Formats: sequence, structure tokens, C-alpha cells
Amino acid sequence: MQQNVDVLVSEVGPRDGLQSIRSIMPLEAKKAWISAEAAAGVREMEVGSFVPAKLLPQLADTAEVVAHALGIAGLTVAVLVPNFRGAQAAVAAGVNKITIPFSASDTHLQKNVRRTPEEMLRETREIVALLRTIPAARRPRLEAGISTAFGCSYEGVIPADKVVRLAETLMEVGCDEVGLSDTTGYANPRQVKDLTIRVRQAVGERALAGLHLHNTRGLGLANVLAGLEVGIRTFDSSLGGLGGCPWAPGASGNVVTEDLVFMLDAMGVATGIDLDRLLAVRKILQDALPQEDVYGFVPEAGLPLGYRQRVGSPCQS
Amino acid sequence: MQQNVDVLVSEVGPRDGLQSIRSIMPLEAKKAWISAEAAAGVREMEVGSFVPAKLLPQLADTAEVVAHALGIAGLTVAVLVPNFRGAQAAVAAGVNKITIPFSASDTHLQKNVRRTPEEMLRETREIVALLRTIPAARRPRLEAGISTAFGCSYEGVIPADKVVRLAETLMEVGCDEVGLSDTTGYANPRQVKDLTIRVRQAVGERALAGLHLHNTRGLGLANVLAGLEVGIRTFDSSLGGLGGCPWAPGASGNVVTEDLVFMLDAMGVATGIDLDRLLAVRKILQDALPQEDVYGFVPEAGLPLGYRQRVGSPCQS
Repeated sequence: MQQNVDVLVSEVGPRDGLQSIRSIMPLEAKKAWISAEAAAGVREMEVGSFVPAKLLPQLADTAEVVAHALGIAGLTVAVLVPNFRGAQAAVAAGVNKITIPFSASDTHLQKNVRRTPEEMLRETREIVALLRTIPAARRPRLEAGISTAFGCSYEGVIPADKVVRLAETLMEVGCDEVGLSDTTGYANPRQVKDLTIRVRQAVGERALAGLHLHNTRGLGLANVLAGLEVGIRTFDSSLGGLGGCPWAPGASGNVVTEDLVFMLDAMGVATGIDLDRLLAVRKILQDALPQEDVYGFVPEAGLPLGYRQRVGSPCQS
Repeated sequence: MQQNVDVLVSEVGPRDGLQSIRSIMPLEAKKAWISAEAAAGVREMEVGSFVPAKLLPQLADTAEVVAHALGIAGLTVAVLVPNFRGAQAAVAAGVNKITIPFSASDTHLQKNVRRTPEEMLRETREIVALLRTIPAARRPRLEAGISTAFGCSYEGVIPADKVVRLAETLMEVGCDEVGLSDTTGYANPRQVKDLTIRVRQAVGERALAGLHLHNTRGLGLANVLAGLEVGIRTFDSSLGGLGGCPWAPGASGNVVTEDLVFMLDAMGVATGIDLDRLLAVRKILQDALPQEDVYGFVPEAGLPLGYRQRVGSPCQS
């Protein structure tokens, strides 16, 4: 059953997508979505966020969503937590992975989690200490997601040196890995390669696991390709590109899972995901959120004629 | 005035874009578009096609458009011609470059220009002979654009061997260069690299000048990046992604010039194009074609905050 995969596609729609829209998806639809996407072969999903319900009512049922997702064999169940209290809730829920959003931009950090870098670092240390009380076999992995790593819509340019130092600090205080997030859709392929290489030189290859890229300026898949070429093997994306981008109407936010998996699959990169089954999951989203926009080119255009003949022979040679 | 450029962005909107939509753009608007885009720094434009007006009324004024474009200093004025008669008209108009669409798919060739491969090859030889009667100094360059090079929506997979042999044949009969066109939006980055390398090995580096890529499945810019990495230095694109895709509603067709130039510019690749001035040209299109959809992520989302600071320092280091 467990195939080898070259690249792990990590679905973040149930968290990053749903937190960015007005509509609240009913719990049953979330469960159906997660089950169907896991059945299509997706092996890691960020299914929610432990934040106060009054801040993000869309994710108020995260504990129930986690309980459901943990029942799916082979699925790594991840959540985002902004602080120690969230981490406690995540541990209580029994998640496999916890991501903390640590912005490289002080302004964005303040707006997002209402903490200075020093306060957020203290919080991170407390989370690390909490996790170390758990036996290794069932301890959640802790990723520090470095938001606004490629630029910030409040501060503009974020110096690469600052991102590298932050990655080093986060590994020193005990995170298991760091990720780089293009929260604002500012990244370009050259920058993705340069920053990835620099951070990996600083913290080691295994410590920089993944990239979280946005498609706000249409460069999402080109940036994925750049990351792939310098050895990144985990990419976040969102089914239907769900979430959009509040400050850029009409521009999609997250990289669209369907388009990402199509690109990798067409290139002969194994994801373990069945593209037809993945495309069918979109309907659950559309039915549950009829008033929300969904994005994606492949779902609109369909697969190329003769695509199935090409499986295993993506170069048409 | 003449800066060095790393990559030539070849605008095909006035031909490929306008031929794909129902509306007919008035001659004055075409002239204004071409002048404004040339003033923004675009150095090559496919401004029309010499085909019977009853087939493509949108391009019936190509001779007048060419006459206008030839008055713009430093602009390479290209047209598409489907046959010998078109080439005669192009020569009479005094264009700098002629592209013939030679599909690698026999079915697509038949539907597009109503000729078998043998007939189209004979036509090509006649065009070459015609051009050789013109003194070298003012002879238009002849490019054979190999359409459906990455797959065909009638035939499906097009074997790479067939594309390579066609490129060789086209160079043997006297074309100055070949281009590879992803007419159907089927290409993926690995295929772009593989086929580019194979064709260049067969015909030489300078004989494969450019790629004409579509964004139908969202992979347009990733495919550009792939081409760039194997040494391609000319990319076609269409302002506003004009043209769409008749068999895939909502999916855009050509790579969007604005997004392409943003990607290259952000990467520090010199195009000679002023991005702000380019973005302003879009308004001419929208005003002249209010009922047509235009595409593009960068025009919607705007440039990143602090983008100007980064000029010459795209890696934020």
C-alpha cells in the first residue's frame, strides 16, 4: 500500500484556506474533504488551528477535525498553533505535527500573533519544553514556519540574513525543522533557490523540510520548480487554491493542490496521489462553500488528451 | 539607448491574442498598443497574420499595422503566414520576420492550414526560395514555429522523435530558425527541458531560438523557467494573456506578458522592459476591448512593497 514518493504534497486548505474565507464550513464537510483527499493519496494535512474561537470561528471545531483525521491510516495530522496554549490543546488532541508561525517581519509577527520576536521566542521555548515531556514515540514534530520569509506587505524587503539567523535560532531552541513561507506571494524562483540554499547551509538539509508558496503573482509553480531543483521535497498547497487573498481581489492565494500535483505528476515526480481522485475532491469543497471562489487551471482545462498513455513516460520520448 | 538584454520577450498578442477573440480591435487601438508596448521596451512583436480577411477579419488590417510598426525604431516586426501567398504579402509589406506555423501533429496541421505535411513542406521551400530573391540586408528572417510540439488536442501525445526530425527537416529546407510551441498548454517543465535539449542537439543552439508557451494548465511560467535554465533566451507572450482558450472556458491561453516580465525582472534577468510602463499598456487593451477577458496575476495583485529597492538586488541579500 505504502508507495515511495519523491515529493510530499502537504494540504493546508482545511487550515490556511478555511481561515481566510468568511464562510464557515460545516464539520461534516471538513471530515468528508479530509477523508476523500487522504483516500486520493495525500499523506499530510494541516487540518486546523488551535486559536480562540472568537478570533477564527471557521476553525472552532479543530479538536473534532483532528479526532476524525487521526482515524485515517497513514495520514500525518498537522495543526497550526500561534502560542503555548494552542500547543497544549494540540498535544491534548494528539496531533502528529505542530507548526508555529514565526514571522521574519517584526511588524507581521506583531499583527499576526501580537508578540515581539523576543516574546515569540520565549513562547517557542515553552512549547519545546512541553513537547519534551512527551515520550518520543508519540511526541508531535515541531516545525517553525518562517512567515514573510521572501518579503512582507508591511515592511517590504526582508533581508535574507535575518531569515537565516532566525532559522538558526529556531533550531537552536529545539524546533525539529523550519519551513519557509512566502506568505505574501513576493518570491521569485531565483530568490527561492538562493534563500533555500543559504538556510540549508546554516541549519542542515533535513532541518529545512518544506516550502509554503503562494500564487498571488502567478509564480507559485515556477517557485515550486525552483525549490524542487535545489532539493526541497515538501510543498504546501491548498485544494482549489482556497483562501484567495484579501488584499488582492481576484488573485489567488495558496498554490492550488490540483495544479501542483498535475505538474509533478506530468514531470514523472511521484507524489503517491491519484490525480483523478484528487480532482473529484474539489466537488466536496464547491458543494459545501457555494459562495466561495475556487481556483485552479487544470480543473478548468482538464487533463491533456492521451495523458494516461504518458504515465511513466512523461517526456514523450 | 540600446541596453543589453538577457532575454527577449516577444509580444504575440496583436496576432495570437486578437485572432482568438470575437471582437475586432480598431486599427487605431492596435497602433496605440504596439507603440506603447514598444515604448515600454518590448523589442519584438508579432503584429498580425497575412491570411484571407474572410477567415480572420480580426487581422484584415495587418498591412496597415505592419506599416505603422515599421516606423518604430528598434522594433523587430514579425507576422505569421500560413502559406506562400501570405509570405508574398509579408515581403511586400516589408516585415523583419516571418513565422510559419508548422504543426508536428498532422491532424492539427490539416485543421490549421489545410495541408498535409508534404504540402506544407513544399510551401515552406517556396517561401525560402522567395526570400532568397531578396538581398540579405533586407531579407526577413524565417522562423518555422513547430506547433503542438508538446502534445496535441486531436492526437494526444506527439513523439519527441517526430518533433526533432521535423526541426531538422525545416532547417535543411532553409528556415533560419525553429521555435517550439505549446499550442495546447500540454507541456511540463521536464518535457520543456528534454525536448529543448534534444532539438538543440539536432539543429544547433542558435537554430532553436525561442519557446511559445501557453498557460492553459497554469504551468506557463514554470515552463518558461525550465526553458531559461537550458539556455532559451526568447519567450513569446501576450499582453493580458489575451486570447483565452476556446476549448477551456476560464482558462487563459498565452503566457501573460505582464507576469512573465515580472518574473524575469524580479529574478534579475534583464529584459529591457520597464515594468510600470508595461503595466500601463494594459489599459489600452481594456478600453478597446471592454467585452473581452484579460488575465494576469501581477496586474491584479500589484508589485511587492519595496520592489523598487530591490532592483539590482533581487535576492534580498
